[in-house]
Parts: sequence; structure tokens; C-alpha cells
Amino acid sequence: MASKALAIIAGVGPGTGASIAKKFAKTYSVVVLARNPDNFDPVVQEINASGGQAFGISTDVSDSKSVNAAFDKIAAQYPSSKVAAAVFNPGGGFVRKPFLELTEQDYSIALASQAQGAFNFAQRSLPLLLDSRESSEYPPTLIFTGATASVKGSANFAAFASGKFALRALAQSLAREFGPQGVHVSHTIIDGIIDIPRTKAWANEHVDGKLSPDAIADSYWYLHTQPRTTFAFELDLRPYVEKW
Amino acid sequence: MASKALAIIAGVGPGTGASIAKKFAKTYSVVVLARNPDNFDPVVQEINASGGQAFGISTDVSDSKSVNAAFDKIAAQYPSSKVAAAVFNPGGGFVRKPFLELTEQDYSIALASQAQGAFNFAQRSLPLLLDSRESSEYPPTLIFTGATASVKGSANFAAFASGKFALRALAQSLAREFGPQGVHVSHTIIDGIIDIPRTKAWANEHVDGKLSPDAIADSYWYLHTQPRTTFAFELDLRPYVEKW
Amino acid sequence: MASKALAIIAGVGPGTGASIAKKFAKTYSVVVLARNPDNFDPVVQEINASGGQAFGISTDVSDSKSVNAAFDKIAAQYPSSKVAAAVFNPGGGFVRKPFLELTEQDYSIALASQAQGAFNFAQRSLPLLLDSRESSEYPPTLIFTGATASVKGSANFAAFASGKFALRALAQSLAREFGPQGVHVSHTIIDGIIDIPRTKAWANEHVDGKLSPDAIADSYWYLHTQPRTTFAFELDLRPYVEKW
Amino acid sequence: MASKALAIIAGVGPGTGASIAKKFAKTYSVVVLARNPDNFDPVVQEINASGGQAFGISTDVSDSKSVNAAFDKIAAQYPSSKVAAAVFNPGGGFVRKPFLELTEQDYSIALASQAQGAFNFAQRSLPLLLDSRESSEYPPTLIFTGATASVKGSANFAAFASGKFALRALAQSLAREFGPQGVHVSHTIIDGIIDIPRTKAWANEHVDGKLSPDAIADSYWYLHTQPRTTFAFELDLRPYVEKW
Repeated sequence: MASKALAIIAGVGPGTGASIAKKFAKTYSVVVLARNPDNFDPVVQEINASGGQAFGISTDVSDSKSVNAAFDKIAAQYPSSKVAAAVFNPGGGFVRKPFLELTEQDYSIALASQAQGAFNFAQRSLPLLLDSRESSEYPPTLIFTGATASVKGSANFAAFASGKFALRALAQSLAREFGPQGVHVSHTIIDGIIDIPRTKAWANEHVDGKLSPDAIADSYWYLHTQPRTTFAFELDLRPYVEKW
Repeated sequence: MASKALAIIAGVGPGTGASIAKKFAKTYSVVVLARNPDNFDPVVQEINASGGQAFGISTDVSDSKSVNAAFDKIAAQYPSSKVAAAVFNPGGGFVRKPFLELTEQDYSIALASQAQGAFNFAQRSLPLLLDSRESSEYPPTLIFTGATASVKGSANFAAFASGKFALRALAQSLAREFGPQGVHVSHTIIDGIIDIPRTKAWANEHVDGKLSPDAIADSYWYLHTQPRTTFAFELDLRPYVEKW
Repeated sequence: MASKALAIIAGVGPGTGASIAKKFAKTYSVVVLARNPDNFDPVVQEINASGGQAFGISTDVSDSKSVNAAFDKIAAQYPSSKVAAAVFNPGGGFVRKPFLELTEQDYSIALASQAQGAFNFAQRSLPLLLDSRESSEYPPTLIFTGATASVKGSANFAAFASGKFALRALAQSLAREFGPQGVHVSHTIIDGIIDIPRTKAWANEHVDGKLSPDAIADSYWYLHTQPRTTFAFELDLRPYVEKW
Repeated sequence: MASKALAIIAGVGPGTGASIAKKFAKTYSVVVLARNPDNFDPVVQEINASGGQAFGISTDVSDSKSVNAAFDKIAAQYPSSKVAAAVFNPGGGFVRKPFLELTEQDYSIALASQAQGAFNFAQRSLPLLLDSRESSEYPPTLIFTGATASVKGSANFAAFASGKFALRALAQSLAREFGPQGVHVSHTIIDGIIDIPRTKAWANEHVDGKLSPDAIADSYWYLHTQPRTTFAFELDLRPYVEKW
């Protein structure tokens, strides 16, 4: 089992990240990264309890030392495993405020969590993905999670949109550089409220008007399984009732 | 078997359309529309020979009378079938010429094939899709096939890009109107050369540098099976080596 | 005076077209085209009364015969004049309806007015613009007027958005083909209500919350006067209070 | 003269920034900010020598302390002047490298120069621009300079494109928040090589195939003078021969 391929998922809480981890755990060993172990412990236990393999590492993606330590730990833990997929599903940096009430730190945290974090994660993931091209059933895949704020800089979203636009630029640039090398780089635009514990109470006139984390995870798996003749770069996902 | 649900596919030749028909024929009876029966006869025979159900109707999508006759024929042929999916995959109107060499007809044919044809097809499909919401396993789906020219008006592509931009506008408008009513409307951007008999001879430095029609069809099926909590509107598909 | 350069403006009513005509009439003889002479007569008279030169020709831009007749008339009227600028500012094809209430004609008129009309106009304008490169003070210019619907296919705007998307595709393609030949092709996105007689009664909480036709005309003149080292292709214009 | 309005321009070297400073100096006192005084000294001297008023402050826009010190100095120097315009024309952070050769610092500098720098500059400029609404002849204006990399993440441009995408997000968000308050926020996309001393030697088959800094400056002035009924948000500028 040591040589089962890996999926590394950064940004795992009780929502999309957990669903992605469970989906990819049906085929791969999964490593989940989040700052707070409380966020990944339940999904790690759930996967291991149901016959899969999961492993969590407390990681601050915005800190390259922390990211390097996590990847070193992965290499030590799975010395003979190839990395089939890496997902960057960051949670940090969200803030909604009038611009003149934003602090310098609000803005820098958004850039650090979304953009610099993605840089750190991609720097360590891409060599591993390149290295798994021969052995992978599907083209090795790097997916970045975007949001409405990835393509629209709304009022009061200056910080978060800056981070998400930057993340999308990074994803585009990597897709153009690494696609021809056989690595599938994708970016999703999650446009709507995700149906997770934290949003349960949020009013919604439609009972099924929120995005399903499991359906998002199915999309990521679908992207991962595309052959390299037919790569999608960008996928926008929203509830059927969403205004856009 | 009369009540097996239908998929109606407009624009079926020996490429993407045939692959989509075969993919959807695994679950549905398929009706394929093309101007020239020579284009759909092989796939109709192949599907029927392999245990599926297929039916071809010679149709000029740019002519509303022809589209109406086709849909009337479908209703007569399958009086108790619901329509689960409709795909508009038009072939006409492609022309690449310096602008001042374009004829008035070159331009009007591109608009007629791509935009007016899509209008005609959507006018007849949407009532049927709305009518199948209760009975469908998956949300009823209307997919339009776009191209690079859907988002970029390149030099010498004035006619084709006008048709493809118009088609994308139609798709967006329908997604916003019919999504909240439970019909999934999607648009794909096929960005690259498709690997079909006609393009076999086209030079390509990479042996797998062309889009696979079967993989495109898998994408259409994936879009069709998304739950309505998590609809994708737009998907861009290109070979890994494509410049974009 | 016969050799004063010309500006040809298609789509002139008591709004943007009239303002553009008056702005360009300060430097050029202007020819204004509209279906109904009632639409251009006032501005023709105003320009001629104030020392400028204006001439109106009843023209249906969606009909190539009518466009050809108009350009033949211009050539006869101004045998030695060069064309410095051409503006396509079409009015037709606007319709806002649920999709299933749109008629085939609603849709085809939108395509004909916006896209085929622009094609007809560009086919006759571009040879004249190319011919004036040597003699023009500013690079000869072809400007197309777009709208919100040029970049967003909203619900109930399927027809108009199809026409406007197609027009933008045409403009992009021409900019890429004729820019390198020294003709400046631009496209504007007029995103908001224009302050014209017809919209006077439209409620607006802000006294200056509508676009000024004269300010739009200033923008067109600004685009026209850009040197070819520094061409703008696209300009979005909206009132300061507009939501976008 | 103390009450002449101010234009504050960040990012002034011997190119666009200098041209913008000279253009705005015809009407306003200008304050130019750049890290290295060698970059702004020549234009400050030129403006002052020709009857204008200019003042340079060595500033690192990516450092909020430095930006705060600069604005405090401006307040001390011009205690009774209103700020009519602010331009963020950053130079830093450009790097073109394969992704795996980028250092963490390459990436963070791009974000700091383009995005965090723009945040720092806008935090101090916007209160001054809001304060000048009553007294200004033209709506107070904040312009950000973008590039091709603002809308396209090309291979080998991961760092620079991340910074430029983030900057565009910020500009959009500010336009949507401060436009309705009467401040004109714009973003330009400079798509091509600018004709400055540093690029003189760069091969170009066309003698006039580079962007003119003076024409860019004219565009900024044009944006500044638009009435608030008719604001442009985004303007793309490129040489006539540019491929795009």
C-alpha cells in the first residue's frame, strides 16, 4: 500500500476540502493540510475508518517554511508514492469591509493566504506532479479553487478579490507553462454559497439553493480524470438559482 | 421502451456530434439532426446495431420550418417520451477570409447557422426540457458548442466569430433565465483542433495534440449529470499542447 | 470646401448619434444615415445652420442595397473628399422579452440591425478609410457602439445580446486586421441609460445619473484623435452611480 | 499659488510616469513619488524650469510607513491644496522566469510592488480625493496603470501577472465603491512596449510600433476630464501593429 499514489489537498475544513479529500481517497492516499488540526481531524478519521488512507499535517500555506516542512514530512511518510493530484483550496483572507476601514494587515493577509500560499504550494507540488507523469493513470493534476471574487472586484471586496484575482493569474500562468509538459492545471470559480455547517443558518429562499460540497468534489475528480487531449482550464459552478 | 427519455442532438457529423450521440445513447434514445443524412446515417446505424436507439432527421437548423418539422416528427415518433437533454453542436458558417473578401452571404450564413439556428433549436427544445423536470433523473440540460471564436474575434474570422459570439450570448441569456427554472444550460469553448477524419492529415507535432471527440462527449455527459445545486455554465476544453 | 474630409455616422436619432455628428462636424463634413429622415433632419439642419456641413441619407443599414446606395450617393456628392471617420451607432433590434415569447423575427431583426448592418457598413467604409490614410490628420477611425449587452447575456435579452455580442466580435476582428494597416477600429460599451428625450421621464434617483450624449461624443472624438502608436480598442462608459 | 490643486503620481521614471507628470503639471502642482530620486529628479527639474510646479519625494510604495511619510510631507508642503488626481503607475515586480526558477521573493515583491503598494497609495489618496470633490473642476480621479499581464497570465509571468491581476481587482473594487461617491477610478491596460530610453534598442520592425508615453499621458488626462455622468473604467492601449 505504500506505493499507492497520493493526493495532497491544502485547505481542508468541514466543507469543500473535506468532500474533495473523501472523493480522492476512494482512489488515492490523501494528505490534508490545514492550519488547525481540528479542521482536518474529522475527515482524516472518517477516511481511515472507512478503509481509505488519510494523513493530516498542520500547515500554514502562507508560510513557505511551514509548507516546506509539510512536503518534507510527506516525502518521509510516503517515500515511494507518486503524487497524482494536488488541490489548493484556501480558506483564508476573506474580509468584507469598506475600503477605508481595511487595515494594511487585512489586505496583506488576503494576498498571503490566497496568492503567496498558492505560490508556496505550487512550488513544492509541481516537481512531484511532473515526476508522476509516467506512472499516473490520469494526467497529474493541480487544481486551484476560485470564487466570484476571482473575476469580479466588487465594492467592499478589495482585499479578497485582490487575492483571488492573483490566484487566478497564477493558475493561468501555470496551466500555460505546465500543460504542455503534461500536467493538468485547472481553476474553478465557485460562485455562490456552499452548503456547509457554517452556512446552514444563512437564509435562502430555496431549499437547494446552495452549492453541494460533494458535487464540487465530483467536479474536481472529473477534471482530474480528463485525458490530456482534452483539458479544461476553467469551470464555473453555481446553484441553479444564483444571480450572476 | 417508448417511454425511454430522449436526447436530441443537432449538428451530427463524423466528429463530436457522433461521439455525443453515442455517449448519450447509453442512457437515452437519441435523435440526431443534420442537414445531410450521410452525416448521421453511420452513427444512427452504429447505435442501433449495438443495442441503443437512434433516429436521424434531415434538418436545416437555420430554417425554422425545418426545425419545426423535425420536432413535430420527434413528437409523433416518441409520443410518450420526455426530453432529458438537447445539444446544439452546429457545424455551419465557418469561413476564414480577409474581411473585404467576405461576401454578404458568408456573413449571413454564419449568423444563420450559429445564432438563428440555435434560436430555432432552443425555442423548440426548452418547452420539452421544462416538461421533463419532474421525470428526469438528472436536471434537463441544454448544451451549446462554442469555439475559440466564441471569445476572441481574430483577424479573418469576422463572420464565424460573430456567429459564435452571438451563440454564447444566447446561451448566457438562457442559462440566466432557465437555470432558476431547473433547466441546466451550458456552453463549451472547444479551443483547438478536433481529432476527426477530416483533420487526420493536419500537421501536428504532437501525436496526441488534438481534442478527442469522445472526451468532449464525456464532458457533455458530465455537465448533464451535475445536480442543480452545482451547475457549471462554461467549460473550456483544449489539448494540453494548445497555445492560448 | 468640397475636399473637406468626411465623417459618416450611421444610426443618428435625437441622442448619441446627433451628439457625435455635431462633435465631428466641427472638423469634418458629416454624412448621417438613419432609416427615418425625421431622425436626422433636426441635426442636419442644426449643423448646417451653425456653419458646419451635414447631409442626411435615409438608409436601412441591415439592407446591403440600401447601404450601397447610400455610399454611392456619398461618392457622388463628395467626389473629392476622403473619409476620416466612420461611426456605427445602430439603434435597431432592442427587445426585452422572456425567451419563449420572442418571435423568430425579433431575433433575426436584432442580428440584422446590429451584426449584418455593421457588416454592410464596414464593407463600404473600410476601403474609404484605407484610402484616406495618407491625407488624414488623425488615423482614419471606425467606431462601433456597444452596450451592456455586448458583454453580458442577461435573462430576457437573448436577441439584443446576440446582436451586440456579434457586433463586438466583428469589431475585434476588424481591429486586429485593419489596425496594422493603420485604421483605428474601436468599440465602446455604453453601460447605462443615456440622457435623451426619450428617457427624460425614466425615474432616476440621481439628477445626473444618466450618460451624457455629448460626453459620449467627446469620447468618440478622443478615440479618433489617438495616434497610431497608442490606439485604444475598447472603452466602457457608465454614469458614476451605475451598478456594474 | 499655494492653493493650486495637486496631482500625485507614484511610479515616475523616464517613461510614462514622467509624461503623465508633465501633462498634469500644465494644470496642477505635481508631486512625484519614486524610490530612487534619480528617477524623478529630471522631470521635477524640467517641470519647474518650464514654469510648472513639481516636487519629488523618495518613496517605497510597498512600504506603508514610507507612503505615510510621503503623504504627511505633501500635507505639510501644500497645507491648503486639494488633490485633484492621483496616479499609481508602479514599476516594480517585473520578472519573467520559468515558475520553478522563481524565488519566493520574486513572487512576494511582485505582490508588494503592485498590489500592496496600490493599497497603501489608495488608502492615503482616497480621503484626499473625496475631500476635493466640491472644489475640483473635474471629478477627482484615481488611475491605476495595468499591463497585458493584468488580464492574461502567460507562461513565465506567474509573479508579475499575479501582482497585476490583484491590482486590477483593487481598481475594480474601488471604482464600484467610490464611483457613486463622485471619485473617478480607472484602470488602463498598457498592451505593448512603451517607447522609452530603456527600450530604444529593442528590435521592432515598425518605426512607430511602440506606445508613446505622451499619448498614454494624454489618455490619462482625458480620463481625468470626463464628467461623472460618463466615466470610463477601463481603457486598453496598444500600438497599431501589436498582436493581441
